[in-house]
Amino acid sequence: MGKEFLNLMDPDEVKKIIDSLNMERKIERINLSDAYQRVLAEDVHALIDLPPFNRASMDGYAVQAQDTFGASEDNPIILNLIEKIRAGDSPSKEVQKGTCSEVGTGAPLPAGADAVVMVEVTDIQNDKVEIMEAVAPGTNRALQGSDIEKGQLLMEKGTLLTAAKIGALSAVGLKEIPVFAKPIVAVISTGNELIKPEEELKHGKLYDINSESISNAVKSCGCTPLASTIVKDDYDSIKNRIDSYKDADVIITSGGTSAGAGDILRQVVEDMGKILVHGISVKPGKPTLIGTLPDEGGNVVLFGLPGYPVSALMIFHGFVAPFLRGIAGVNEFMEKKESRSLKLGRRYHSARGRSHFVLVKIEGNIAHPILKDSGAITALAEADGYFEVPKNVEIMEKGEQVKVQSLSGL
Amino acid sequence: MGKEFLNLMDPDEVKKIIDSLNMERKIERINLSDAYQRVLAEDVHALIDLPPFNRASMDGYAVQAQDTFGASEDNPIILNLIEKIRAGDSPSKEVQKGTCSEVGTGAPLPAGADAVVMVEVTDIQNDKVEIMEAVAPGTNRALQGSDIEKGQLLMEKGTLLTAAKIGALSAVGLKEIPVFAKPIVAVISTGNELIKPEEELKHGKLYDINSESISNAVKSCGCTPLASTIVKDDYDSIKNRIDSYKDADVIITSGGTSAGAGDILRQVVEDMGKILVHGISVKPGKPTLIGTLPDEGGNVVLFGLPGYPVSALMIFHGFVAPFLRGIAGVNEFMEKKESRSLKLGRRYHSARGRSHFVLVKIEGNIAHPILKDSGAITALAEADGYFEVPKNVEIMEKGEQVKVQSLSGL
Repeated sequence: MGKEFLNLMDPDEVKKIIDSLNMERKIERINLSDAYQRVLAEDVHALIDLPPFNRASMDGYAVQAQDTFGASEDNPIILNLIEKIRAGDSPSKEVQKGTCSEVGTGAPLPAGADAVVMVEVTDIQNDKVEIMEAVAPGTNRALQGSDIEKGQLLMEKGTLLTAAKIGALSAVGLKEIPVFAKPIVAVISTGNELIKPEEELKHGKLYDINSESISNAVKSCGCTPLASTIVKDDYDSIKNRIDSYKDADVIITSGGTSAGAGDILRQVVEDMGKILVHGISVKPGKPTLIGTLPDEGGNVVLFGLPGYPVSALMIFHGFVAPFLRGIAGVNEFMEKKESRSLKLGRRYHSARGRSHFVLVKIEGNIAHPILKDSGAITALAEADGYFEVPKNVEIMEKGEQVKVQSLSGL
Repeated sequence: MGKEFLNLMDPDEVKKIIDSLNMERKIERINLSDAYQRVLAEDVHALIDLPPFNRASMDGYAVQAQDTFGASEDNPIILNLIEKIRAGDSPSKEVQKGTCSEVGTGAPLPAGADAVVMVEVTDIQNDKVEIMEAVAPGTNRALQGSDIEKGQLLMEKGTLLTAAKIGALSAVGLKEIPVFAKPIVAVISTGNELIKPEEELKHGKLYDINSESISNAVKSCGCTPLASTIVKDDYDSIKNRIDSYKDADVIITSGGTSAGAGDILRQVVEDMGKILVHGISVKPGKPTLIGTLPDEGGNVVLFGLPGYPVSALMIFHGFVAPFLRGIAGVNEFMEKKESRSLKLGRRYHSARGRSHFVLVKIEGNIAHPILKDSGAITALAEADGYFEVPKNVEIMEKGEQVKVQSLSGL
């Protein structure tokens, strides 16, 4: 059993190191129907004009506007109906002086017509249409290409594909689109004490928590988790498991980073690649390790989280999540929504010299700090979010505003 | 072609009618690994104590605290090491007066020991451990059940299952959990003019947008969309298609609600069930229809949205989404995160007497209204969110605060 061997770094320094890790973004083509919440990887230009044809934007009669000049309720003008055109039809007759065609909203405007008179200001008997209001040329008509012309930029690379944006892409008939591939993140829980759900709980054993909590947190960052089985805390088991995930973009382990675990993960990463960080002056999560492992396609980034579930999740949110959102291309969208300014529900004492991540339960606009040690599981059951106390702050007063990061991922 | 036949209702009245539609929430049991962002449907109690055994919360030596009283760096106390216990081990020896066992963080505390001395204040030579700091009974020890006892409430019905909460559930060894079933929502686009992506675009035809935009918007409300193929605008086609989706919880159609479409949807719903709303005094989306269709298991709710994609999406967000989130059990979580207070980027003119839903593009804390008609597809491409102008407001000034609902769904 070793003693303290960490080289504690300032959180800001660690964040700089993480920011400097660059990772090539892969692009894949997927069906538009699978594109929800993905990020567009290339600019998309309109493949067709929108609307694709001159069309009526109201139910009514397609006319030559000039025919209607002077029309009023007292003095209706009579036009001969020559055709009925519904949305989806293709007109077969040209509207000439003295004639009109019935059009539904969205129907193509027949040749010759330059305006639509709303049905509400007309009357019809047999094939004679009474027009009771004059219209100017262009009224209730949308010209081909007036929304966007073929070839114009429809949507920029980097756009988050919401329901509305997917609708806009489907308007030009696209079936497949280029999006950033979701980074693959292997999630490995290490520990001789860990067992899987529904296994028998023998003395000294614990149900594995981090496989589930970290895998789901990975999903919330727009990445795809690969959940591993539990790995024993010995050099060969850990090295072999890490080796088997060298195709992943990122590997996240938990456990095995503290002095008592015999420093195994550190040895493995040193032998396989390079240690960038081992020890962060934060609470909880001090013994965190960050390294890179060389691979054909560049480096695999490895984050070694502490084993305690609260510590693992806090370090994930504070350091790993921004990196994952960045390589997934969803950072700017998530950051916009994730933090809320809330009032602290009670006085909070921190320790100078280390940043603190504090879990909170949210009630209305109050954030109640959860004052349990990082081994407490019920803290996870209660937590709605967390805030960070900077290292130079010792006391935060009740009622002070804190910037709370949500844990909901919605 | 009919004329205006709508019975315009006030939006608040419509919302009340929607609120009064109750729908039984179904419960299903799923694997915990599939539970991300689902909603717990029953209270969950701890199946085991947490921690499940008395354990060390630090790396160090398990001792009888009394043995350490008086220990200091100048005056270390020597204890005989009798066993090494790592996390996951089961201790075999009892710690008695004058002895100690090495323990890793998370390792079970051996019988007889009542405290742990941190490794940092010890030294070891052969099997003699020098203790250089006194500890009180209970130091660095977590008692079995001290976090939560078997049988106590771990998580309440209605909890949104985040990464953290799933972690807490896995701590008690759960594999399956009860969650609210995702409501099934059939999405039907009607219109003779509509074609599928990659079909040839003939004159008068349009690529279908609403199937994609509404299906994805349904996903953002915690429901499962069933996308239908496109339906022609005639009585039998629409009635047969609606009939084929009577097993769904909700049916959403788009198109076929305006006067020009011949009032077909209204006739179908009248014949099959009951019209609750036909016409809302909002812009866009006036000709919206809401009805119920009787079914063995209660009523299927039908929302008939207008055909124009912007109108359809606005009515979806304003009226349908809160209903869907409600029956999916995710309303409170979504509403918390969805709206932001932003500054209006320019003066906006509305029309008294109708509520307006206005799409906006968001830049920083500015919401720029998108001033395009509801037939414009590029409005969907640009929109990040929308705000509502109440019916009694005619002008909103540049710089005024508006409550913007995000369309991102993240």
